[in-house]
Amino acid sequence: MLVAVDCIVFGFDGEHLKILLIKRGFQPEEGKWSLMGGFIGSDEGLDEAANKILFQLTGLKGVYLEQLHAFGNPNRDPERTISVAYFALIDILKYQTKLHEDYHAEWFLTIEMPTLIFDHNEMVEIAKQKIRYKAAHHPILFELLPKKFTIPQLQSLYEDVYNTKIDNRNFIRKLTSTGLLIKLEEKDKSNSKKGAFYFKLDKKKYKAKIQTFLNLVPNAENLIG
Amino acid sequence: MLVAVDCIVFGFDGEHLKILLIKRGFQPEEGKWSLMGGFIGSDEGLDEAANKILFQLTGLKGVYLEQLHAFGNPNRDPERTISVAYFALIDILKYQTKLHEDYHAEWFLTIEMPTLIFDHNEMVEIAKQKIRYKAAHHPILFELLPKKFTIPQLQSLYEDVYNTKIDNRNFIRKLTSTGLLIKLEEKDKSNSKKGAFYFKLDKKKYKAKIQTFLNLVPNAENLIG
Repeated sequence: MLVAVDCIVFGFDGEHLKILLIKRGFQPEEGKWSLMGGFIGSDEGLDEAANKILFQLTGLKGVYLEQLHAFGNPNRDPERTISVAYFALIDILKYQTKLHEDYHAEWFLTIEMPTLIFDHNEMVEIAKQKIRYKAAHHPILFELLPKKFTIPQLQSLYEDVYNTKIDNRNFIRKLTSTGLLIKLEEKDKSNSKKGAFYFKLDKKKYKAKIQTFLNLVPNAENLIG
Repeated sequence: MLVAVDCIVFGFDGEHLKILLIKRGFQPEEGKWSLMGGFIGSDEGLDEAANKILFQLTGLKGVYLEQLHAFGNPNRDPERTISVAYFALIDILKYQTKLHEDYHAEWFLTIEMPTLIFDHNEMVEIAKQKIRYKAAHHPILFELLPKKFTIPQLQSLYEDVYNTKIDNRNFIRKLTSTGLLIKLEEKDKSNSKKGAFYFKLDKKKYKAKIQTFLNLVPNAENLIG
């Protein structure tokens, strides 16, 4: 039996949540869009294989990577492969774009994703659900942000992840009450003359254990599967 | 490469949380305690294989069974097997004890578990963490209870799952506020003359989406990994 690892790579470019896909260069399903994956070597651990694939594709090490689920439906692919899917959260600005070309990789808006090979669309759906669930209890979405970011950026990210509109004033108020953000003196003036203050994450508090972020997103209980 | 499924079966007997283990009847590691598992057939899905193993061992169908994690460390066993672990939650009173003998199966208190083969102890630890995490947001622990149960039983279950003591009065108050329980007229008089009222679960409310059960257990944030 063949065992593979597939990586679902989510990124944020400061405006929108995106997913990194590759154009498959070999049969079966050559020329179609796909997640990046590979077979497990006989001396290789699963986490190790996933980290290797992620590095090949993005040039990044030490980014957020978590096992999602093992997919083993006997009809999922022509060769009876069992795939262990992982998801990664990265800041697109750190991503080395030159690696794109080797794999014909492209970033897609998560809401405008093409049809993928095998059960890869299902994997992506389950990964989105997992991120919504996890982000309700852990501040994992900060993994997607640059070191300094604005509140409008953070709000866009939450809106894309939960695929919902969020009221600006409630969001700021509830976010402030988490005590996770440190306001910087510098402003981002790229979008308006008045500008928006940059913030950074309070890393000590970020390490704290589980808490509730459910209230950042109105009606989040119903958006999480 | 070989792919196996291993099942971590948790049960509640009305007093304590237990785990079902088998005495391994073949090499390697013959005679040692182990989770129940088996290799995946070439036409078999992962969930299907896990359900089959659970049925063989317990005679139960349709019980709570969820994929936990795929374990693939190259040194985890002598044959380079990748194991997809599942956990099940069952009411021990429904369990058909005659099946015990075929597999030399025994229920152990989770706090008094023997050393298991391979990485099975690690699997059990991760399953316990997952249940603590999940029970903080979903009423999954009711899967372990009989149809009618007493509050002291429910409290024992929570205490065993989180391995902590819970104050009786706070527990009742917070539990009542979940609105999940329906009080019955019948009493359980097996433990005291005064008796304890039986309750049942409000199944319509149980189907509701994610909510917070964190407050049922004092300091739960720090008990969840």
